[in-house]
Amino acid sequence: MRTTVRWATTLGLTATAVCGPLSGAALAEPGLAPTALYAPSVLVLTVGHGESAIATTPERAVTLSCAPRPLGTHPAAAPACAELRGVHGDFGALTSHEGLMCTKQYAPVVVTVDGVWQGQRVSYERTFSNDCMKNAFGTGVFSF
Amino acid sequence: MRTTVRWATTLGLTATAVCGPLSGAALAEPGLAPTALYAPSVLVLTVGHGESAIATTPERAVTLSCAPRPLGTHPAAAPACAELRGVHGDFGALTSHEGLMCTKQYAPVVVTVDGVWQGQRVSYERTFSNDCMKNAFGTGVFSF
Repeated sequence: MRTTVRWATTLGLTATAVCGPLSGAALAEPGLAPTALYAPSVLVLTVGHGESAIATTPERAVTLSCAPRPLGTHPAAAPACAELRGVHGDFGALTSHEGLMCTKQYAPVVVTVDGVWQGQRVSYERTFSNDCMKNAFGTGVFSF
Repeated sequence: MRTTVRWATTLGLTATAVCGPLSGAALAEPGLAPTALYAPSVLVLTVGHGESAIATTPERAVTLSCAPRPLGTHPAAAPACAELRGVHGDFGALTSHEGLMCTKQYAPVVVTVDGVWQGQRVSYERTFSNDCMKNAFGTGVFSF
């Protein structure tokens, strides 16, 4: 009997050790629908010409998933994910390229980001004075 | 001269007929970056357990592109796109399955949709009283 209990305990601990890190919320909330094996990082990025998202029709939109691997219709998903990991998904923390020359032409372009970054909701909007300024921001996450 | 004008007009109309439907905003706004060949339909859908999105951590999130072809991490992208085309992207117009039996257990689950549907911004949130009710809504767009 003691052997059985010991085996059961060992198997249980082994199962927890093996499956625990993979199952996350699924184990924490038994009875719920199966959840993802990792906190989701899934975004929709749009770009449109105008001063604010509410007054602008999005001209292009791409998806960007960063877990478990870079994926999406973003033309450079892997560098974009690396860039976002570097700022922990904080779009406001991205900076502009140094040394890049842009004209001062005012042709405003607005980008939006909506979705989830590592399980936290994201809703971001930023207006640049022209396309060049947009593309100089970060290292390419808004170049689509 | 009249012949020249007529030819020029004909060529112009032909060019518009051939290129117009493909180029959209790119022709309307010469000099801008190349735009997509179709109005984008790109969405991020999330699901989390709670009463409202603001108070809920998204547990799962998927992408869904519907143009030019169904694509994304949504587990059933093609039927989901077909379903959304049927209601012209109006999530509020989806209805629940008839005849599906759900318990009245209260374990609220909230879904959100953000992105763009045929060039129009989408921001949708809906709370169901339990998972069964969520999955009964539409024909599977929220079954992920």
